[in-house]
Amino acid sequence: MTTWLRNAWYVAAWDSEVDAAPLARTICGTPMMFYRKLDRSVVAMRDACPHRLLPLSMGLREGDSIRCKYHGLKLGPDGVAQEMPMKSKAVNRRVCADTYAVVERHRFVWVWIGDNDRADPALIPDLWPCSRDGWTFDGGYYPVACDYRLMIDNLMDLTHETYVHSSSIGQVEILEAPIETHVANGHVFVTRWMEGVDAPPFWRGALKKDGPVDRWQICQFMLPASVMIDVGVAPVEAGATLAEHDQGVRGMVIDFMTPESETSHHYFWGMARNFDIEDAGFTARFKAQQGGVFAEDKEILEAQQSAILNNPDMKLSAYRIDEGGVRSRQLIARAIAAGRQMEEQA
Amino acid sequence: MTTWLRNAWYVAAWDSEVDAAPLARTICGTPMMFYRKLDRSVVAMRDACPHRLLPLSMGLREGDSIRCKYHGLKLGPDGVAQEMPMKSKAVNRRVCADTYAVVERHRFVWVWIGDNDRADPALIPDLWPCSRDGWTFDGGYYPVACDYRLMIDNLMDLTHETYVHSSSIGQVEILEAPIETHVANGHVFVTRWMEGVDAPPFWRGALKKDGPVDRWQICQFMLPASVMIDVGVAPVEAGATLAEHDQGVRGMVIDFMTPESETSHHYFWGMARNFDIEDAGFTARFKAQQGGVFAEDKEILEAQQSAILNNPDMKLSAYRIDEGGVRSRQLIARAIAAGRQMEEQA
Amino acid sequence: MTTWLRNAWYVAAWDSEVDAAPLARTICGTPMMFYRKLDRSVVAMRDACPHRLLPLSMGLREGDSIRCKYHGLKLGPDGVAQEMPMKSKAVNRRVCADTYAVVERHRFVWVWIGDNDRADPALIPDLWPCSRDGWTFDGGYYPVACDYRLMIDNLMDLTHETYVHSSSIGQVEILEAPIETHVANGHVFVTRWMEGVDAPPFWRGALKKDGPVDRWQICQFMLPASVMIDVGVAPVEAGATLAEHDQGVRGMVIDFMTPESETSHHYFWGMARNFDIEDAGFTARFKAQQGGVFAEDKEILEAQQSAILNNPDMKLSAYRIDEGGVRSRQLIARAIAAGRQMEEQA
Repeated sequence: MTTWLRNAWYVAAWDSEVDAAPLARTICGTPMMFYRKLDRSVVAMRDACPHRLLPLSMGLREGDSIRCKYHGLKLGPDGVAQEMPMKSKAVNRRVCADTYAVVERHRFVWVWIGDNDRADPALIPDLWPCSRDGWTFDGGYYPVACDYRLMIDNLMDLTHETYVHSSSIGQVEILEAPIETHVANGHVFVTRWMEGVDAPPFWRGALKKDGPVDRWQICQFMLPASVMIDVGVAPVEAGATLAEHDQGVRGMVIDFMTPESETSHHYFWGMARNFDIEDAGFTARFKAQQGGVFAEDKEILEAQQSAILNNPDMKLSAYRIDEGGVRSRQLIARAIAAGRQMEEQA
Repeated sequence: MTTWLRNAWYVAAWDSEVDAAPLARTICGTPMMFYRKLDRSVVAMRDACPHRLLPLSMGLREGDSIRCKYHGLKLGPDGVAQEMPMKSKAVNRRVCADTYAVVERHRFVWVWIGDNDRADPALIPDLWPCSRDGWTFDGGYYPVACDYRLMIDNLMDLTHETYVHSSSIGQVEILEAPIETHVANGHVFVTRWMEGVDAPPFWRGALKKDGPVDRWQICQFMLPASVMIDVGVAPVEAGATLAEHDQGVRGMVIDFMTPESETSHHYFWGMARNFDIEDAGFTARFKAQQGGVFAEDKEILEAQQSAILNNPDMKLSAYRIDEGGVRSRQLIARAIAAGRQMEEQA
Repeated sequence: MTTWLRNAWYVAAWDSEVDAAPLARTICGTPMMFYRKLDRSVVAMRDACPHRLLPLSMGLREGDSIRCKYHGLKLGPDGVAQEMPMKSKAVNRRVCADTYAVVERHRFVWVWIGDNDRADPALIPDLWPCSRDGWTFDGGYYPVACDYRLMIDNLMDLTHETYVHSSSIGQVEILEAPIETHVANGHVFVTRWMEGVDAPPFWRGALKKDGPVDRWQICQFMLPASVMIDVGVAPVEAGATLAEHDQGVRGMVIDFMTPESETSHHYFWGMARNFDIEDAGFTARFKAQQGGVFAEDKEILEAQQSAILNNPDMKLSAYRIDEGGVRSRQLIARAIAAGRQMEEQA
């Protein structure tokens, strides 16, 4: 009984985090380690030697293999023993470490949590803005000491910006635009569409043009644990619509929340955009600013997690603004229940 | 089942600790926060927003209200919602945070732990020396990582001074004066009365006079968790008696132990006196000295608490000198049992 | 149900660690303290005052007695009260702290864990190289945050040297010499005997002579928790045998693992040798080097313990090289089971 969905892909790391030396990271309660082979493809393996359980991430890389630092058991990238301690000639090939299906896509390393034979890369959440021509993408990573669902709640309701980010991106007018929440194709959408408004300074600078704009904020939750927020403006005369709004400048805030334990998660965040995509200075400045904003969320959410533990007699309430989070949690809960039913029938 | 009495007043803070910005403090297991309204009266509220449980102490004060830092839910000083997140017009007045009866008296902010409708200010322990004309009072605050009853034991038995405070106030002669313990009017008294003795340097300086004195130390425990220690000397010829001894110089050591958890408490300590009451320099010097003495107790008691946890097969023993603590604990235990019986019958 | 044997002697401290001031150390789950009397013999006592449980190690030494720092209860070296708090004349001699049988031998202070009346010094493990004429002995102490049996596993299998100590004493050729494991006289032996080999630099320097040597490494486990490793070389012409090999230069690595809790132990380590025994500089240099090597083991074993806790679905495997550790653990488990049976029948 976990709070996260099994048989799903989770982001394990940024592509830039994984290299020849093993990276240790606990994913959905399981200690894992990740490294690149000589061909740069990524290996994901249980971070415990099948011999005496020493973390393999402390081991020595040899070719595409890993050798345990304790007694020298050498495992291939498939987790199977290649050399026993003391180099005894008889290698017992039943000696092996668990490995996990892993795919690199959208700048992330994805790992399948569940039965390996059900790991279908087609099921990876379509974070298309991270890897589409005409777009650029960068971001960062924070460990956050709270239930990953609290971060989903946070991202599916942008009213918190006014208070949590009062010193950075919070604007009172956000509160005045109506929102609409719906579920479509198994995704949750929270949409805020503002017609013929003044562009705020950031977007005016991005658009490089004066005059009234249509502005949007569309939060989209996808199983098992990602939120994309489609933000941007287009000149009124461009005729942007909810269905089609690439006429102006557009950004996609990308968030993936990978559970570490019931009360902690790995937060991968970033921003993809379709403007000034060659401007590396802008990219770096924006990443620094976004990192500051998400650090404010981290502080709030870790305090919320502590409060949940310290007030065991109280429950979270849900108001209208929380509908996006509520529906996202419903999708998670239903998918978990369906998965359990399937396992029981199998 | 707690180790502290419900339906009682506890000290939450010094009056000087509570101001416009919220003070977070866990009282008897419940996270609370305290702030002053514009009229300076004090509000005590559960330190968790009824919406998503973020500590309200992280919030923003607006007039007499508090606005949650997460989504901006605004609560009045009565804990009732005044503004919902997103400023939706319909305020649901059933949305509210628990508030607690609170009274300011004797330089302390008192909070009622129990049913608010039973909170009668007349039940506040009578720490009269803290607020009587002709007396002055000051002190400090220490968080102490031990069961609050260990501090009561400590204060109801002054023989520990010889060893714990050997470098400050400990004196061997204290051990030689007989003590008498009794319960009267629901209070426990441990009395040490020394007739015609030499005044020790501190008291001689306070009395500003030579010659034999009568000297006393009277520890008094009052429910739920306070100890006052009446100390002083009077010239023999003044005819001081146990019933009436304001003829010389007199101090009242004031101690209140508010449980935070089963193994930690908030220790409020100080000294009231009826001499040199305008001498602010003396007050400050004495507070510094007393703070040093109580820091010695804190060190001992935290080590004792660790030892209790590390030696689960051992029990505290009680000798004759512990009678004051034993009787104080009996009062607490009986009051808890009586309170439970009352709740079961209700 | 503990993982260690009761009714056995354990090393509590190096002889040099225990002096007049009490040393606090938790042995097999029990907080104890150790001090020397005026005649330099050692007292072992529960580290909790029978009165209010304050650690006696915080107390004041008086003659051969200890006086509690809290209320001054004074206990003799037999643990029995000699003076009550407040110096009341009637000393209740039933007031006492547990004491433990203690013996000084082989440079260590040994404490008996079990029934005091079964404490027979003849049962102390025979670490003869630590105290035999013609030998010298020195070493150190590390607290290690792992089950003591993981250290036994480590020491009974020297193949780990190649990887854990790759930068110090690890040598690939060790892996190529065959080992033989057997149990004799209630001890486990893992023997590696190399005939007519080149002496490695360290041993050549010790032998001060060129030419082929016979070389040995013999790990010996003794209940309840010690390992001695007999290492050395002798010129081939000297005719060393497994039974008799004092012809060349010989060292005995000494290890005692005293459980503190289920997941931590006190590691006492050192080296006895029969060459250059007057060379204090060599002794000091070797101790420093050995301390560096064992610090490498400490790092590995603490990571292993964490991995065991973090991978509760996995079990330690045992290969051929682990036979020494496996048999040692069997001796422990059998002795524990036999002890329980005896207690049940009693």
